Amino acid sequence: MTTAPVARTTTAPVPTQSTYQTRVADYWNAEENPVNLELGKIDDLYHHHYGIGEADWAVLDEPDSTLRRERVTAELHRLEHAQAELLASQLGPLAPADRVFDAGCGRGGGSVVANLRYGCHADGVTISAKQAEFANETARRRGIDDKVRYHHRNMLDTGFESGAYAASWNNESSMYVELDLLFAEHARVLRRGGRYVVVTGCYNDTYGRASREVSLINAHYICDIHPRSAYFRAMARNRLVPVHVQDLTEAAIPYWELRRQADHLVTGIEDTFLSAYRNGSFQYLMIAADRV
Amino acid sequence: MTTAPVARTTTAPVPTQSTYQTRVADYWNAEENPVNLELGKIDDLYHHHYGIGEADWAVLDEPDSTLRRERVTAELHRLEHAQAELLASQLGPLAPADRVFDAGCGRGGGSVVANLRYGCHADGVTISAKQAEFANETARRRGIDDKVRYHHRNMLDTGFESGAYAASWNNESSMYVELDLLFAEHARVLRRGGRYVVVTGCYNDTYGRASREVSLINAHYICDIHPRSAYFRAMARNRLVPVHVQDLTEAAIPYWELRRQADHLVTGIEDTFLSAYRNGSFQYLMIAADRV
Amino acid sequence: MTTAPVARTTTAPVPTQSTYQTRVADYWNAEENPVNLELGKIDDLYHHHYGIGEADWAVLDEPDSTLRRERVTAELHRLEHAQAELLASQLGPLAPADRVFDAGCGRGGGSVVANLRYGCHADGVTISAKQAEFANETARRRGIDDKVRYHHRNMLDTGFESGAYAASWNNESSMYVELDLLFAEHARVLRRGGRYVVVTGCYNDTYGRASREVSLINAHYICDIHPRSAYFRAMARNRLVPVHVQDLTEAAIPYWELRRQADHLVTGIEDTFLSAYRNGSFQYLMIAADRV
Amino acid sequence: MTTAPVARTTTAPVPTQSTYQTRVADYWNAEENPVNLELGKIDDLYHHHYGIGEADWAVLDEPDSTLRRERVTAELHRLEHAQAELLASQLGPLAPADRVFDAGCGRGGGSVVANLRYGCHADGVTISAKQAEFANETARRRGIDDKVRYHHRNMLDTGFESGAYAASWNNESSMYVELDLLFAEHARVLRRGGRYVVVTGCYNDTYGRASREVSLINAHYICDIHPRSAYFRAMARNRLVPVHVQDLTEAAIPYWELRRQADHLVTGIEDTFLSAYRNGSFQYLMIAADRV
Amino acid sequence: MTTAPVARTTTAPVPTQSTYQTRVADYWNAEENPVNLELGKIDDLYHHHYGIGEADWAVLDEPDSTLRRERVTAELHRLEHAQAELLASQLGPLAPADRVFDAGCGRGGGSVVANLRYGCHADGVTISAKQAEFANETARRRGIDDKVRYHHRNMLDTGFESGAYAASWNNESSMYVELDLLFAEHARVLRRGGRYVVVTGCYNDTYGRASREVSLINAHYICDIHPRSAYFRAMARNRLVPVHVQDLTEAAIPYWELRRQADHLVTGIEDTFLSAYRNGSFQYLMIAADRV
Amino acid sequence: MTTAPVARTTTAPVPTQSTYQTRVADYWNAEENPVNLELGKIDDLYHHHYGIGEADWAVLDEPDSTLRRERVTAELHRLEHAQAELLASQLGPLAPADRVFDAGCGRGGGSVVANLRYGCHADGVTISAKQAEFANETARRRGIDDKVRYHHRNMLDTGFESGAYAASWNNESSMYVELDLLFAEHARVLRRGGRYVVVTGCYNDTYGRASREVSLINAHYICDIHPRSAYFRAMARNRLVPVHVQDLTEAAIPYWELRRQADHLVTGIEDTFLSAYRNGSFQYLMIAADRV
Repeated sequence: MTTAPVARTTTAPVPTQSTYQTRVADYWNAEENPVNLELGKIDDLYHHHYGIGEADWAVLDEPDSTLRRERVTAELHRLEHAQAELLASQLGPLAPADRVFDAGCGRGGGSVVANLRYGCHADGVTISAKQAEFANETARRRGIDDKVRYHHRNMLDTGFESGAYAASWNNESSMYVELDLLFAEHARVLRRGGRYVVVTGCYNDTYGRASREVSLINAHYICDIHPRSAYFRAMARNRLVPVHVQDLTEAAIPYWELRRQADHLVTGIEDTFLSAYRNGSFQYLMIAADRV
Repeated sequence: MTTAPVARTTTAPVPTQSTYQTRVADYWNAEENPVNLELGKIDDLYHHHYGIGEADWAVLDEPDSTLRRERVTAELHRLEHAQAELLASQLGPLAPADRVFDAGCGRGGGSVVANLRYGCHADGVTISAKQAEFANETARRRGIDDKVRYHHRNMLDTGFESGAYAASWNNESSMYVELDLLFAEHARVLRRGGRYVVVTGCYNDTYGRASREVSLINAHYICDIHPRSAYFRAMARNRLVPVHVQDLTEAAIPYWELRRQADHLVTGIEDTFLSAYRNGSFQYLMIAADRV
Repeated sequence: MTTAPVARTTTAPVPTQSTYQTRVADYWNAEENPVNLELGKIDDLYHHHYGIGEADWAVLDEPDSTLRRERVTAELHRLEHAQAELLASQLGPLAPADRVFDAGCGRGGGSVVANLRYGCHADGVTISAKQAEFANETARRRGIDDKVRYHHRNMLDTGFESGAYAASWNNESSMYVELDLLFAEHARVLRRGGRYVVVTGCYNDTYGRASREVSLINAHYICDIHPRSAYFRAMARNRLVPVHVQDLTEAAIPYWELRRQADHLVTGIEDTFLSAYRNGSFQYLMIAADRV
Repeated sequence: MTTAPVARTTTAPVPTQSTYQTRVADYWNAEENPVNLELGKIDDLYHHHYGIGEADWAVLDEPDSTLRRERVTAELHRLEHAQAELLASQLGPLAPADRVFDAGCGRGGGSVVANLRYGCHADGVTISAKQAEFANETARRRGIDDKVRYHHRNMLDTGFESGAYAASWNNESSMYVELDLLFAEHARVLRRGGRYVVVTGCYNDTYGRASREVSLINAHYICDIHPRSAYFRAMARNRLVPVHVQDLTEAAIPYWELRRQADHLVTGIEDTFLSAYRNGSFQYLMIAADRV
Repeated sequence: MTTAPVARTTTAPVPTQSTYQTRVADYWNAEENPVNLELGKIDDLYHHHYGIGEADWAVLDEPDSTLRRERVTAELHRLEHAQAELLASQLGPLAPADRVFDAGCGRGGGSVVANLRYGCHADGVTISAKQAEFANETARRRGIDDKVRYHHRNMLDTGFESGAYAASWNNESSMYVELDLLFAEHARVLRRGGRYVVVTGCYNDTYGRASREVSLINAHYICDIHPRSAYFRAMARNRLVPVHVQDLTEAAIPYWELRRQADHLVTGIEDTFLSAYRNGSFQYLMIAADRV
Repeated sequence: MTTAPVARTTTAPVPTQSTYQTRVADYWNAEENPVNLELGKIDDLYHHHYGIGEADWAVLDEPDSTLRRERVTAELHRLEHAQAELLASQLGPLAPADRVFDAGCGRGGGSVVANLRYGCHADGVTISAKQAEFANETARRRGIDDKVRYHHRNMLDTGFESGAYAASWNNESSMYVELDLLFAEHARVLRRGGRYVVVTGCYNDTYGRASREVSLINAHYICDIHPRSAYFRAMARNRLVPVHVQDLTEAAIPYWELRRQADHLVTGIEDTFLSAYRNGSFQYLMIAADRV
């Protein structure tokens, strides 16, 4: 039985428009980092973001090396899931008939979390055809593919219906795009009073310009981290009014400390993140805003 | 021994420029509400704002009517003080040599709280000559008048030195002024990296325009409550970048519930506040921002 | 015989989007003030605005109380009609084939006045279903329902054809909405060179912020009176260029003086208006502008 | 006896900064049009602007040619004076202690009119050294040089004291400058609540771009006539809020009709003005605005 | 055989909206200057712009007067063609399947040049019905009317498909329109990464405002020359980013020197152009920009 | 003999305000790359930028290794000097009495080049105390320290006199700062009509966001490369109007090709530059603009 509120996938707009976007898509089409795949396998929830909260350091003391790996993997997944739940909790009270838009959905974990929590319809969008396919497969396995769908589209130009969404978010995906274009699209698809949430790494204007560490992170992910000020300026221009802003930097450090000690999962960028957080040049920030 | 960092009071700019400002000044010169004076007498800390946090409802059960009044008064003062401490905690690490600017200082409680917490210099500014005089007298009684001074000035045009302040705030005083002028003045006097904090009632753009309750509050205080969006737009134009935003509406309700039952303290606006908070048209908000 | 230029009423967009708008609609659906209904009955022209011009004070001297009431009612209606005619005279030369848009039409008087003067088509829009129905009934009685239609819609989002209107106006209805959204809609539906007129109460930036009286008026009508500056700023952003601006404050005072003495018609807000006009905090303003 | 409120002439900033300004100054240093000089001689009031109001056409029927010239000259001067009085009437109630700023004062008539009406201090500014000298000489002849002074300065950068003026105006001089720079200077020197008035020819955005006639007028005077919209946009950016806007085009036509028949006074641009007014491409506009 | 990429001519939007536009259209419908027609006849390439590069002054020494006229005509055409080629060279590498938009195409020369160089599809737009017809006839003669089409439309509102064009330009046609509207339309029809080129006379902000010569040129052509700054401001607001800017003033002088000596071709504006270029008030400028 | 036009060095404002600026200063205080020092030694002209123009590849064929190194060094220096001369040639005709401002002067080469070419006064500003000292020493050796001075200051806040400079520039130093602050300072110190020139690496908006290569360059130099669009937007806001824009990317490649083969001079970033230029993500751009 069809569920009208879910956006069709037939008339997909062109997902990439620039060389840069193609390069980002190539990156994610090729990406198979264990830190994303191994953690996701645990419960078939694939997150593409970092974790928050205090870690259970005891997992490092596990004497059996295989078991230690498993426990570390599980602990990191727990922290990532805690982040996803924090974000989802900001989406506000949602009804099963509501639609949400997951901008930059990766392998799809966030949309599933939202659906599990609220029973709502979810449309995830990713520039990577492979991620969209992967995510749709997980939805089919869970039997929620009538309500949760992933689209290989450009999140700046989704083709989704105007005013049709009750909530939307970017979970560590806003650093790949021009914020004015991104927020214009969110403002367009959200209904009046809808909720937008972004969790992002941003560089700290108080520190000054982008630090060396921030540039190294940019080079690692082929992204272009915005200053914190850019988020508020672009929101102000796009009818998104913050209602809750939380600096998650401190809460993110245990995740990175644990991950840097997980030999089977490290990607090599861990120490750079920790330095960037600690020298004050980089922040892990959540903004919840209302579409007015 | 002289303390150079404190602003001189000799070359005070004209504190009022418009009829409206004169009328506001007249209101506060004449104001002698028990809810401000009786609470302040407890420990010589005069706050001009509301309280937050859970209330000790047992004070209402006190059988002796005089004692009940005293306990209710003390409890409301405790809640107001908690609010002042929350704001002060956002001013960041400050050294005794730092200067802070208390914009719209009323009878001076906030500057004292900051001085007690950080040992810093404080300059409070109020449009009411009577409040400035009252507050300076409390500073003298405490023996901190070498570090804490109150000025009868216009907070939009303080005459204070540019870049000389490490932190500044408005505690329920921003609804009397044009935000662009206010934030321009804060941005001017704050040093790069300085912290600005505002606690304010704002109307909720998500609800729509100003509700009847918001207008009644405006009429009560001769103020002009801004929509929440106005704060973020004006900050974006004045190099103030939010880093922490907290909706204190829920936390403010116990204070108002208790106060409406305090016959000796009510001003008549209590039920209007509660209705405004509860119908979603009004919010009690804290924004901490960095001057970049 | 069909009259193509009149907008269809079939595909009405949702008229209310926010709680505030619902509350305003409820107010006007319930409103049955004699000052609106009794005056309208005289000649089946129902105005929802104030009057201008010198009053015939002799009506107060009528010894017979019933007759006095009738004469006062008629005199107030005459002043209201003079205002409607002044506004209509600013709409410029219009031909019978032209279409005009009456934004916030109330019980429909303004559209009838325009039709009588120019023979043009008129589309009135009101957020109150009851007002739209009432107004359409008056058009039927006059036999002009082929040219004058009233729609239960949101004037910020009319769904009317772009560039199809030769003139449009807000007669005391702009204080309920965000001006940028309102003027964007007028600019959209007006043809190049079309005329827009607004008559409105605005607060006077020269005085300062909103006075207590202005807030009391806001509370009375659940509206949110803009400062005068807001009109010119929003017009500048929306291709509306003023060509005639007139301060009608002095001209409005006789109407209010007479009305406050009309016991059978007063609503209780009369003295507040007179105070607001006289202390300089409030103005009754007309702006005629061209769509360029 | 000294009159402190009059600006000193000692520290004059450089009056011209660009080649264009030098060329304009050269024009006015050399200008000796009878229409300016002959009219001014009548009562030693030298206006540099056009006239308004109905003309006494009988002057053309005067059979004696010398007398006809005199009567035509007097009639044109009467119409120009009427314009100056209309402008002066918009400056609001002014006290003798108030200061006014006449931007682009020409040979000084406007400042004298203001002084005669209000007894106020006046500072006229002109880019032409010869005009400033001429005007100061007329003030000496009238014995008002203690209150009325003319300065050879750049009206965009007067060096006058901030907030010291109660009123200011441009009478047909705004078409020589960038409006944002001009209004920024007015906003700077005016006190809060001060009144600004401009009378100007502007081109009509409703017509489209500058017509051939407007360009011919520009070529005649080496000026650069702004579109009407430019005035409102620049005022909106510079805290000047219109309160009265009047289209004087119709009222200006008799003056030009009479002048074109005054062989001893014509400058050759008369028919172009009449065409421009009549084809709708050009307007003669007055805007009175408040400094907020 | 149909060529889909060429825009249809059936649903032409209204080409003129204002009196000014009608007057400009009338001018070009009536225009039959030899300098445009005689030069075009040489090779059936009709340019409506000036020439650049060093001239072969020997043509003036030709003793036979008929031959001299022919050689001068040919030399001027050569210089105009050089300008057209310079512009076309900035359009970037284009493929035959690409579409280009020639805004203000006159009698069509530029579109032909682009087609000859790149084999691309071209859509020319002119407000003159006569020019469009003339240009389409030349395309038919060349047998390229399946790829090159001219439309009688308004270049501010072409009705062309969004994002469908690889390049677009204005060759001396931007001085007739509001730049923000013009660039918005270019930005709309260009694909991301598309190239926009403008060659234009602009007045030089460094000189000051429009000089007398600039105003005479405006009067001659009924145009409204923009300051140089206006181009960069409007591009910045419309996602057009300059990548090459070249001052062609010096390169344009030989053309004008030669033309002023061509008695059979002069239009009377030649000396004014030369004065304007030489006194620094006017510039001949090319800007190539990318649509981002 | 005194040289008044040179800025005093006595009242230096604080050169660094943020952690980022301190880190940049530390970098340059410690920097001793042979590519900067060895090249400078040749003729005591120390450049801190790249070279342009075709290279003499024969230097690589020099069989003697010591001589080859010398010839390569000399060739690279020649290319860098060509760049400095190109920039200097854009500063316009300057007289010996004119002052120029070299923003981000490094070890001082650019100011010397300007002085040698025009005989003008020069004020160089660098955030590195060591560079300022080094540069002043070279000026003393050349005997031009009466006209050329280097200051240890913040180029965003020089303390230099307003309107006192005829020309100013940034040669590869704008990527360390916020462009709006930078251009505001240039606009402040330049006289009306003054010339500003920037040579910079910028990322190409047409490509998309910052590429991995751009981020690696940022990490290498601790800088924050702007998109090309940012320069034009910030100039438009700060009264700087481009008059010449040149893409120097192609012209820069020989320099980098030669340098990557100079083992004694490479810093390791050479291949990244070449990749960035060649994949279209990065450009080497010159903009000359007028202060209006």
